[in-house]
Order: sequence, then C-alpha cells, then structure tokens
Amino acid sequence: MSELRKDPIVRRWVILAPSRNQRPSDFAKATPTLPVPGAPCPFDMGNERYTPPEILAYREPGSAPNGPGWTVRVIPNKFPALRVEEPLERHAEGLFERMTGVGAHEVIVDSPDHDKELSEQSEEQIEKVLRAYRERIADLSRDQRLRYALVFRNHGERAGASLVHGHSQLIATPIVPQVVAEELEGCRAHHERTGRCVYCDMIDQERRSGARVVRECDRLIAIQPFAARYPFETWILPRRHAAAYETTEPEDLAALASMLRDMLARIGRALNRPHYNYVLHTAPFREPDLAHYHWHLEITPQRTATAGFEWGSGFFINPTPPEEAAAYLRGIRS
Amino acid sequence: MSELRKDPIVRRWVILAPSRNQRPSDFAKATPTLPVPGAPCPFDMGNERYTPPEILAYREPGSAPNGPGWTVRVIPNKFPALRVEEPLERHAEGLFERMTGVGAHEVIVDSPDHDKELSEQSEEQIEKVLRAYRERIADLSRDQRLRYALVFRNHGERAGASLVHGHSQLIATPIVPQVVAEELEGCRAHHERTGRCVYCDMIDQERRSGARVVRECDRLIAIQPFAARYPFETWILPRRHAAAYETTEPEDLAALASMLRDMLARIGRALNRPHYNYVLHTAPFREPDLAHYHWHLEITPQRTATAGFEWGSGFFINPTPPEEAAAYLRGIRS
Repeated sequence: MSELRKDPIVRRWVILAPSRNQRPSDFAKATPTLPVPGAPCPFDMGNERYTPPEILAYREPGSAPNGPGWTVRVIPNKFPALRVEEPLERHAEGLFERMTGVGAHEVIVDSPDHDKELSEQSEEQIEKVLRAYRERIADLSRDQRLRYALVFRNHGERAGASLVHGHSQLIATPIVPQVVAEELEGCRAHHERTGRCVYCDMIDQERRSGARVVRECDRLIAIQPFAARYPFETWILPRRHAAAYETTEPEDLAALASMLRDMLARIGRALNRPHYNYVLHTAPFREPDLAHYHWHLEITPQRTATAGFEWGSGFFINPTPPEEAAAYLRGIRS
Repeated sequence: MSELRKDPIVRRWVILAPSRNQRPSDFAKATPTLPVPGAPCPFDMGNERYTPPEILAYREPGSAPNGPGWTVRVIPNKFPALRVEEPLERHAEGLFERMTGVGAHEVIVDSPDHDKELSEQSEEQIEKVLRAYRERIADLSRDQRLRYALVFRNHGERAGASLVHGHSQLIATPIVPQVVAEELEGCRAHHERTGRCVYCDMIDQERRSGARVVRECDRLIAIQPFAARYPFETWILPRRHAAAYETTEPEDLAALASMLRDMLARIGRALNRPHYNYVLHTAPFREPDLAHYHWHLEITPQRTATAGFEWGSGFFINPTPPEEAAAYLRGIRS
C-alpha cells in the first residue's frame, strides 16, 4: 500500500510505493528489470491475460473484452504507484505530512504492433491514442478526491521505459503536481498583470518572429521554446485558447495526431531515433475554463543523463540554440 | 559564448552553451563522448598540460603550478557553461528575458588517483576536497555580479559523469537557482511562522524518533529524509545552525569528511557501488548569517532513468521507505 509524503521545506511530494520493489537488502543483488528475452510481451495481441483487466479498449465490433480485436487498450499498471480503491486520509506528525496513496496509474497501449514507434503509426491510430487520453482524463475527473491526471510517455531506456512495446501512462493524483502548480502560478500572475493568457501571448510573439516555429496548421503550432532545456525540445500548442485537454474537439485531435506524428518523425530523423519523453500539460480537474491556462504537449528528447547540476539547481544546460534546432527541423521532410 | 534564458512562465533558467557542442546537423551522427580507450586522462598526475591552467591546488612544498606534486587540483572546465570574463548584460524582448552567460564553471579533482571512488580515499584527502569547495565558494562570492555557487558531484554515467577519474564541479551563477530559491522560500515561511529554522526543527524531530537517522556525531547528523525521492537518498546536516558552508570551521570539515566517507561507503555496500550525485545546498553569496537557512549535503543514488512522470510533475516515485533504508544502512559496517 503506497503513501504520499510531502517534503517539509519545499512543495515536493513523493509517492512511496513499496509494493513496486523488494526489501532494501535485495538492492545489491537486484538487476534492472529489462524484459527477459523470449518472454511474452503483455501488450501484444493475444497476450491480454498477462495484464489486469482492461479499463477501456477500442475494439472491433463483436470482440470480447480482454481478448484480441482491439486497436488501443487501456489497462491498470500492474505495479501501480497509486490505487483508486484507497480511502483518502491525511496525517500530520510534527513537520511531516502524509496522505494515503489514492489515485490511478494506467497504461495506454499504442497499438497491437510490438515494434512500431508512435511516429510510425498511422494518423488514425495516433488519433485513437489521443482520444483514449481524453476519455480517461474525463472519466477520472469525476472522482472528487482526485485533482489532476498527468499523461506522459517514456520512450527508450534512457527516458525511463522498461518495456519496448509502445505505450503511454497516466497517473492521477489527489494533489496538483508541483510543476503544474508553478505553471499555473506563473500564468495567473501574467493574467492578473495583463488580462491575457501568457501562452496566447507567446504564440503571438513566436508567430511574429518565426525563428522558433517549426510548423503550424489551422489549429495548432509547434515551436522550439525560447528557454529550451534540451536540444530539439518541442512544444505543440493549440492556437486558440483552451485550458483543458478534455475539451478538445474531434477536429483538434485529428490535427494533433498529424502534428505529433510529424514532429516525432522529424525529431527522430534529426537525432537518429532518440529516447524521448512527452508530457501533456493540462488544467487541473474540473477547471476547464481557466482564462490563464493553455494546454500543450512538451516533447523532450533525452540524450544524456540528468546530472547533479540540473537536480541541484532546477536549471538546465542546453548546447543547441532553439532557433538553430527550429531551422533544422523545418528543413526535414517528414 | 553562452547565454542565460528565462522561461516566460516559470522561474526556470536555461544556460544555452553552444560552444559545448556541434551544429544541429551533427546530432544524428554524434556518439556519446565516452573517453577514448588509451587516451591520456587529463586529471592524472603528469597530465596537467591537458587542462586549462589551475585555479587552486594543494601542493607539495616547492612543486610548480600546473605540474605534478598536487593532492587536490581545481581547474576551469574545458567546456565551460558560463565564463567569468563576460560582462553582465540583461535584455528583454517581449515576454522573453536573457542575460549574458556570466559565471564560473570549475572542476575539483579528488586526487591524483585515477581509479579510487571518493569513499575509498582517506579522510584527510576527502577533507582537502571539502576545503577546496569552501575556498572556491569564498573566493567567487567576492564577485558582486554572482549570486550563488552550486557544488555537485556526478559519479558514474547514469549520474551524468563523462570522465571516470573522481571529481566534483562548481557552477557559479548570477541568479539564485530555482531549487535553492524554493528552499529559501519554504525556510523563510517556516521562520516567519515559528521563529525557528525548519532544518533545526527537522533535526530535533528526527533525533527524537530515531527511525530515519543513520548516524550522528558531535557536529553532524546523517538521515534518510522523510520524503526521500530515491532509495537510500541521504542528507548530511550540521547539528548546529549554520546557513553558509563557507563559514565551516576546520573541525566541521574533518567531521564532514569522516561522515561523508562513511555514508558513501555504506551506500556503496547497500547498492553495490551505485552511480550517484551529491549536491551541496548552501546560502546565496554574502548572506552567511541567515537565521532561516541551514547548509547541508544531499546524496542521491541513481539507479533508474528519470522518466516522464518525474519531469512532468516534479514528484517522485520511491519504492523504498526511508525508515527501512535507514535501518539497513545502520546495520552496515563501513
């Protein structure tokens, strides 16, 4: 049973999830949990029995749950960091605050295809993945104990993936995560000062300059952010103000599928199929109409280990100016 | 020439250091910069000519700078993220703020011994390393343009080290780093509320409970923090209130050398010689007497890649309760 603990000095919460691991004495002999060669992949079609029962699946008409016939499948994480079955309880002990590990931890399997990277899927397939995100966020947001759903993708070992078969994850938490809370504060401060959304202003400024824009369509824009942390860090944002991902329309999702496929393909060409993460930044649950927040997707290629400087400072060292990266990505045919 | 850029939404700064790398078009063919087998190690005794001229060295009497005869050597990073020679200039352009890359980026070489991990060095040698940190912080703090010096160690590839020969780094910045600024804010809030230092309160509470204490001596205490981010994350703090590392007395440094060697040796036994980072958390320059801040050292073993969830949330998932890790570390003879 897991537990949430708050650092007594900063706003950082930690999820202690002991069931995910062994006793401390096992550490010295523990090896990384890479897949055993020849072992069945739990995300392949026909191997549905190796996962917990599905939460959502897009299926051929007539196919039965937890069997073959699906295109996208959402399942609980087999080793969940948080569980929706827990009651929400808070305790304090002097300086220290803790909370029961209430939440959700789900896996969204890209497709039955074991080997395809997301950018190699069809736009229709990617759109289904994006639709599954929306459906799961909308469903979980009805649980009044929960405040946020973080959707993210770890691709490749250096980005934290432990399974090869393409998938994303969703972790829903009873607290708004620190990174999101800080974004919301920055956005609120800008809105109080100017009456405008800072992301809308940023999109305007980027479109006027053009130097960091990779591509835009009617609905979306893809940029290299001004203060990029990593070479080829890419943000995709809706051009029209919208705080919450779950309010996207079908046309938005089709456009996002096309833009995401294109950006991942270009980054893949530029960096020779890098390990990467992406994270969906969206409004907290039940606040879809925030005037100061703007949902977006941040793609961060991971080429080197994060080191003491980044951990200790919260600052990043990036060798590649985003203007150069944008020019390079614009020149790639995807 | 590098540049500091501020994210327009949050307080994150990024150091754009283009000289550290190649053009974007080189990325696809670039390979990680692991040492070439047989190439001379620039940190070995006798190879001083492969580094920029030394800033500080503890030397045998009569030995000449930039030659053999040293025990600890401090040199500029050959590919510095920031340079002290730049003038400090700030520019704004709409939403975006930038600053010239003023600062310092130094390397502190542990010893002439190529293969020894820090915990395998003598306490006297470790004390010299700790003294070099203090001397460099005190020297750099006289530069009125600079606000902070972050001292950190990357040990092993997974912790971001690119050279095997044991060393630490120091990066001095014209801004207080975000992580430190947030700590300072948390500490100030606690002090305003209670009139006390939150770290002093934490040490009291930990000593009363004992569950997370690994070891203490007259001057220092080593704990597993309540909200540990990683298995076996270890903090070493002075028991008596002190905001700034550069005010440590010689006896403090001797005690810290002994405690640090012991903790690294125990963690090394527990995790089978893990990759790890440590970061020195200390007060900003020229504020040595803060009543609300308390310097300390945070050691974070790195066993797995940081993944999308941690990047996207600022939260961490830790499988090992710090109470279990503390009990295990207490049982190890170092």
